[in-house]
Amino acid sequence: MAIVIGFIPDKYGEAALAHGLEEAARRQTGVVVVNTTKGDALVDNRYLGAEGKVTLEQRLADSGVEHEIRQTMGGDVADEILAIAKDVAADAIVIGIRHRSPVGKLIMGSVAQRVIIDATCPVIAVKPA
Amino acid sequence: MAIVIGFIPDKYGEAALAHGLEEAARRQTGVVVVNTTKGDALVDNRYLGAEGKVTLEQRLADSGVEHEIRQTMGGDVADEILAIAKDVAADAIVIGIRHRSPVGKLIMGSVAQRVIIDATCPVIAVKPA
Repeated sequence: MAIVIGFIPDKYGEAALAHGLEEAARRQTGVVVVNTTKGDALVDNRYLGAEGKVTLEQRLADSGVEHEIRQTMGGDVADEILAIAKDVAADAIVIGIRHRSPVGKLIMGSVAQRVIIDATCPVIAVKPA
Repeated sequence: MAIVIGFIPDKYGEAALAHGLEEAARRQTGVVVVNTTKGDALVDNRYLGAEGKVTLEQRLADSGVEHEIRQTMGGDVADEILAIAKDVAADAIVIGIRHRSPVGKLIMGSVAQRVIIDATCPVIAVKPA
């Protein structure tokens, strides 16, 4: 049992991380932070490098919440999050999503849509402040 | 501060209600159950009639969670949920959503999509067991 957090190093990932840690503290459970890239980490800035991982580790340690970081590469991002959620029998998955675009178009990222539709546990969609 | 629950009397509404009550208990806050119809209550079985409302009231009372039922008619369902969430400064909105359809198509209801994209608070998407 844990809160699974979809994390990429941007404001959406940050929003998910902050909310996921809160949620885990409230439920007195741990977090599994999932950072996935489809492709080559060297050119994908959504993937945490060694330095980013150390910083994240430190923040998680500071939170006092039991935690684990899982980095995967090559798979579909939604599939990886869903597989890990299943693997750890997640209480919930937290993902960061975009606000409606300025031109007012209704767009939800395909990763977010797939996670929300295919997850068997609750999915918490949060937005950057 | 409260948990806003999008409720229609079917298995999706039930899933949202059950999870929303759990969530409110965990956060020691109340729930606002929103039941909206776009059209004519007499022919819309998503809208709670007098009897359905009494039953829901009883269940909410039994839960021990502070609660309120708001029924609205005529407006857009997503707009009503979003407006009430804003009005009560919701901690989160809980909505029930469909699993992927048997033919494997990725379909998210437009109400769910709009609530998730336009809400300023976290949105928790849950599925019937």
